[in-house]
Amino acid sequence: MKYENIKSALEVFDDIQGRINALNHGIGVLYLDAVTVAPKGSGEGRSLTMGALSSMIYEIISNPENVRLLDYLELNKDELSESKNREVTLMKESCTKLSRIPQDEYVEYNMLLSKAQDAWEDGKNSNDFSIFAPYLEKLVEFNRKFAGYYNPKLSKYDALLNEYEEGLTMETLDKFFAQLRETIVPLIEKIKGVKQIDSSFLNKTYPIDKQRELAYYAMDLMGINRDYCVLSESEHPFTSGFNNKDVRITTHYYENDLASSLYSVIHEGGHAIYEMGCEDEYNFTPLYGGSSMSMHESQSRFYENIIGRSREFISCIYPKIKELFPQQLEGVSQEEFYRAINKAEPSLIRTEADELTYCMHVMVRYEIEKKLIGGELQVKDVPEEWNRLYKEYLGIDVPDDRSGCLQDSHWSGGSFGYFPTYALGSAYGAQMLKVMEKDLGNVFEKVAKGNLQEITAWLKEKIHRHGNLYVSTKLFKNVCGEFDAKYYTDYLKKKYSEIYGI
Amino acid sequence: MKYENIKSALEVFDDIQGRINALNHGIGVLYLDAVTVAPKGSGEGRSLTMGALSSMIYEIISNPENVRLLDYLELNKDELSESKNREVTLMKESCTKLSRIPQDEYVEYNMLLSKAQDAWEDGKNSNDFSIFAPYLEKLVEFNRKFAGYYNPKLSKYDALLNEYEEGLTMETLDKFFAQLRETIVPLIEKIKGVKQIDSSFLNKTYPIDKQRELAYYAMDLMGINRDYCVLSESEHPFTSGFNNKDVRITTHYYENDLASSLYSVIHEGGHAIYEMGCEDEYNFTPLYGGSSMSMHESQSRFYENIIGRSREFISCIYPKIKELFPQQLEGVSQEEFYRAINKAEPSLIRTEADELTYCMHVMVRYEIEKKLIGGELQVKDVPEEWNRLYKEYLGIDVPDDRSGCLQDSHWSGGSFGYFPTYALGSAYGAQMLKVMEKDLGNVFEKVAKGNLQEITAWLKEKIHRHGNLYVSTKLFKNVCGEFDAKYYTDYLKKKYSEIYGI
Repeated sequence: MKYENIKSALEVFDDIQGRINALNHGIGVLYLDAVTVAPKGSGEGRSLTMGALSSMIYEIISNPENVRLLDYLELNKDELSESKNREVTLMKESCTKLSRIPQDEYVEYNMLLSKAQDAWEDGKNSNDFSIFAPYLEKLVEFNRKFAGYYNPKLSKYDALLNEYEEGLTMETLDKFFAQLRETIVPLIEKIKGVKQIDSSFLNKTYPIDKQRELAYYAMDLMGINRDYCVLSESEHPFTSGFNNKDVRITTHYYENDLASSLYSVIHEGGHAIYEMGCEDEYNFTPLYGGSSMSMHESQSRFYENIIGRSREFISCIYPKIKELFPQQLEGVSQEEFYRAINKAEPSLIRTEADELTYCMHVMVRYEIEKKLIGGELQVKDVPEEWNRLYKEYLGIDVPDDRSGCLQDSHWSGGSFGYFPTYALGSAYGAQMLKVMEKDLGNVFEKVAKGNLQEITAWLKEKIHRHGNLYVSTKLFKNVCGEFDAKYYTDYLKKKYSEIYGI
Repeated sequence: MKYENIKSALEVFDDIQGRINALNHGIGVLYLDAVTVAPKGSGEGRSLTMGALSSMIYEIISNPENVRLLDYLELNKDELSESKNREVTLMKESCTKLSRIPQDEYVEYNMLLSKAQDAWEDGKNSNDFSIFAPYLEKLVEFNRKFAGYYNPKLSKYDALLNEYEEGLTMETLDKFFAQLRETIVPLIEKIKGVKQIDSSFLNKTYPIDKQRELAYYAMDLMGINRDYCVLSESEHPFTSGFNNKDVRITTHYYENDLASSLYSVIHEGGHAIYEMGCEDEYNFTPLYGGSSMSMHESQSRFYENIIGRSREFISCIYPKIKELFPQQLEGVSQEEFYRAINKAEPSLIRTEADELTYCMHVMVRYEIEKKLIGGELQVKDVPEEWNRLYKEYLGIDVPDDRSGCLQDSHWSGGSFGYFPTYALGSAYGAQMLKVMEKDLGNVFEKVAKGNLQEITAWLKEKIHRHGNLYVSTKLFKNVCGEFDAKYYTDYLKKKYSEIYGI
């Protein structure tokens, strides 16, 4: 097919993007349904469907006609808007990647993902790594292969890292994590030497219906419009955004843990605010959503920790918490609650880890992923290595795989290279805070007044509205200048020195 | 493309069916999500997605290559299995129909459906027919046009009826409904002359979490495997089956109505049992599911009324109900509960109508649909006509459109010609009971023992397992002989004469 002019070529391009968006929307809702509602035994049909829908995306993108269309648009890039050029670039990247992945492998992988999710859940529930191991083996094998397809010039794990944060390398991360270790390990050591905070009241019995009420209260406090964002329940909390008016977050309620669901909701709420803040015009295109996983985690962890675990935020939400749980929190002052929420102590579960030790959990996963993808670690040895690293980094013994290497859903979802973005995102967030304070003055004074709108408006203006228009590192640099982990380590040092008086 | 042999042609055919099944599965889950979970304001994106996915189905089916393939397979029908032949016939029918519907109309209609659903909900919630009316107008207009496309030889409403029950006509229905009227109207009159049953205790306060527990108990009693079937909540109860291992039912809990949700669950559970009883080999093909809407309603209403409202079923479930609601049901005997559940009294809401007056509700809708599609009634006059017919058939005044012509979701879902299948299905069920009793002996003795397995096994053997292998009327005839509404009218006469002593 020849294109008469840019206009007719763009019509075809938009139609193709509409189809891909629709298929991805379908796959996204099928996934959401699978982990929140679907019957336990329904995996087979969904796996076939996801395979077929993914296959259709594959065919659309890798169609030689599409390749010609993209070439034509690229040739005429000067006549396209900035956003259209970015759309073309993004599809071209997918196209190049896909053209290197044989279709049968692509389809097989997408079907594997669906089954691996069930196997991971079964394995976790029955505390049996051997149920998940054969799937993890296949997932690693596929991802090693895919890494070569994605970018044959990079080492395999670097190629995967690049999928979540363009330009990120093991070299950068090794240095970044070393910097974090230099700050965090001495802090953890010092804390061991002083009186530990009592947080036992957080583990009294907190009825789930009341926790649900608190979750909605937190969403409202964050300014999340519930006409466009709903909260569901799943084994592992996550966010799915389909467009800026259809975002889903999930949480998991534990009756004997007040903080777990509350901070999951605030974390996922941060992702949701990002997705909902994207410009309308990017909806239904690949520009909708965030610019990278690190940038996404910078937002979720900004709301969760920098805002959500601040003394000022606690002063806003604690009256409601007291109202919902008067007996459980009898005699617990706001300051005691604040300290409990920020108690720093090596623990087993990443999602429930405190802000200080959190990055150590990430490092364990980083080391294991790096070796799995690098071919230096066998899947069967993952539990042992996991437990060894928890001992080394956090000084604790892992009693079983359920609370060890089976705790996270990332690998079962095929994500290798995602974990480091949590740490990087945390550091991004601390640097953003500095810039925000220059523009807005005292941010925490606003938080204390329950005024999160100004903060969200600033983030929307600087980050959210741009969706995926810019490469993450470029966007970050535009807003914050050169990245420097020192902002984050300074933030941690200041916060924990004050809390523990060390 | 030329096909070398049947085998290669069938491979292409199966691939096409797999794609259609996947797209339909995606659309089905999007719909399910829309009415159970999705944020209120998320309609726009979903509407686009449903439009795009429907459009893909349209393209696959109406592709000239597919037409040639179907011709080739039809030419070689003697070499195909019975089920493969049926699959070819069904796709050929879709193909012929679709080839007559212009693609833009098809896509526009599918997007309209998604918006109409929201408008209907809004209209119902705010008791304002004018919100839904413009959508209903478009829906009627489309369906009038489609009727001509489906079968230009039939009158428009007959063509739509044919979509839900092959061969069904207004002539048959007019006669059938007249027969029902002859039985039901005198019974209603007689009941007016005797002391009415007290059912007020059914409208005490029944906490929803306990009702939920009862719903699961009822599902278990019915023998529904919850690994393959889950219960959700929606405005209007319905069943969606994706394959025999993935069936969803929904209900709506009302705190001041015990019977509403319970009998919705049993009704939808009947649909689910049908869907789950289909042969494995029909999964992911158009043979999966039921053979017609009437046949489907025969199963749901069989479980709901013939079984679920029998004295014997009540004897099984009432102890659990008493256990869940001891205060609300203090002093209420099993027999009093049975009579309350079967209280016959003209009322406003179809889904909550008793077994006796139910068909009068259907008749109102039938008359209105017939005239709307026939072009003899304007949408703006629907409320007035609705209220007039309720007065005429049931003797009651309709206070508002919320409990009048806005109560059902069928029209907003584009279903015109569906309602009569409820009445026809009820009559099918009564005739099946007769045949079942010949084979199994006293069916209700089994029910009294909580033994529904034998009943379900009989229905599975005779009806469920065949899925859509046979045209509904043929399947019915195979099992029950010639259809005769007398079995149903006799059943009603006997049941209500006994209950009311008339």
